[in-house]
Amino acid sequence: MVCLMEAKVRLFVDHPLGEGQPVPLSRAQAHYLFSVMRLGPGAPVALFNGRDGEWRAEVEEAGKKAGTLVCAEEIGPQVMPPDLWLLFAPVKKARTDFIVEKAVELGVRRILPVQTRFTNSERIRQDRLQAHAVEAAEQCGARFVPEVAALAKLDATLDAWPDERRLLFCDEAQAGPAALSDTLSGPGPWAVLIGPEGGFAPPERERLHRMEQARSIALGPRILRADTAAVAALTLWQAHLGDWT
Amino acid sequence: MVCLMEAKVRLFVDHPLGEGQPVPLSRAQAHYLFSVMRLGPGAPVALFNGRDGEWRAEVEEAGKKAGTLVCAEEIGPQVMPPDLWLLFAPVKKARTDFIVEKAVELGVRRILPVQTRFTNSERIRQDRLQAHAVEAAEQCGARFVPEVAALAKLDATLDAWPDERRLLFCDEAQAGPAALSDTLSGPGPWAVLIGPEGGFAPPERERLHRMEQARSIALGPRILRADTAAVAALTLWQAHLGDWT
Repeated sequence: MVCLMEAKVRLFVDHPLGEGQPVPLSRAQAHYLFSVMRLGPGAPVALFNGRDGEWRAEVEEAGKKAGTLVCAEEIGPQVMPPDLWLLFAPVKKARTDFIVEKAVELGVRRILPVQTRFTNSERIRQDRLQAHAVEAAEQCGARFVPEVAALAKLDATLDAWPDERRLLFCDEAQAGPAALSDTLSGPGPWAVLIGPEGGFAPPERERLHRMEQARSIALGPRILRADTAAVAALTLWQAHLGDWT
Repeated sequence: MVCLMEAKVRLFVDHPLGEGQPVPLSRAQAHYLFSVMRLGPGAPVALFNGRDGEWRAEVEEAGKKAGTLVCAEEIGPQVMPPDLWLLFAPVKKARTDFIVEKAVELGVRRILPVQTRFTNSERIRQDRLQAHAVEAAEQCGARFVPEVAALAKLDATLDAWPDERRLLFCDEAQAGPAALSDTLSGPGPWAVLIGPEGGFAPPERERLHRMEQARSIALGPRILRADTAAVAALTLWQAHLGDWT
């Protein structure tokens, strides 16, 4: 739980935070704080930048197109989510937005859209997805915003896969005989991979099963949509290995 | 995994299914099958009604406003989700739709929208939510469609709470000291309760903590939206006590 002091607004800024530090606002931020939220000079705003913890700042200058906040006191220390990546094959716009929002709430370090053989989307709006990640972090009290990477081919991503990073993938076809607590064990960095709604292509599935870092789980007897599968897999990982325990 | 034979369409019908059984179609179903999907006589359709298993039927009569299918062979037996209810405080329209869709995919027996003291919505479109539940079941391969109950007050629902049904609620304020596997144990019927985005009111929280059937869990250090919390809590229940194991 994050205590927001009296601040009603929580804002991610890409600027250093520290005692007495002035923080200039972008035009969009000034519009939001002063025209939408109608904050005036002296009003408190909670700030975080993903590095310097969370700060209570106050409005110093409030203009229509610009403004400045000044950091007053630290509300809490920098907290990072576990070193967990989410890889997913983009689906329709609203559901892709959703996956990004949910990944931030559930707690991941990086979000990597990947193109599989059965993925319909050939492009994503990386800037829009990154903006969604910022909004989700502001809303859920996270002090970190995961980077949304550019869309990359799954095969290329796996070619460059780090030796030490475990990869959890969801394979409807293969109900894992291992208990969840056995599959979800082992320290170090992890990633969760959610395939496209048409499933992985056979060569992709074979490649994943051959990877030493990879482990598969099944998510019940019904067919989950990609967004449901993403939330379910991240939940199970967080409850077994992450910061929910 | 559900094998759909050659059938490209999977349909819920409120009609008995059995060998040679004719199944009359509603106007909306006839429109969907014959105008949208352009099926003709003899085309296969997978049918389920929540009671009689899943059947491969064939189009017998295809009209613009009506039509008839005839059951040919049983594809698989009736499968019920675990005896799990989902109670949730309705949120904004799209997210409420989402919660219903996800509950069906993850597998619940009943969906009960409840009005808490901090719930904004005073009404729901029960028929629309029920239609969403049907669509989700058709899509995810479930052979059962949970009933979406009318909106009821949480207090009244708890007044009439069955002695034997355990109630899992998510309490951000109280990080459960018990291990998840201890909290999520015990046979018999269960329910998951997701509070409104503003949280439970103090008297509601106290009442829940006093209930012998109730157990609380925390879902990580970030604040989850109601729809995320619903998917996360149902996932943990299914993985520990439900049909995902």
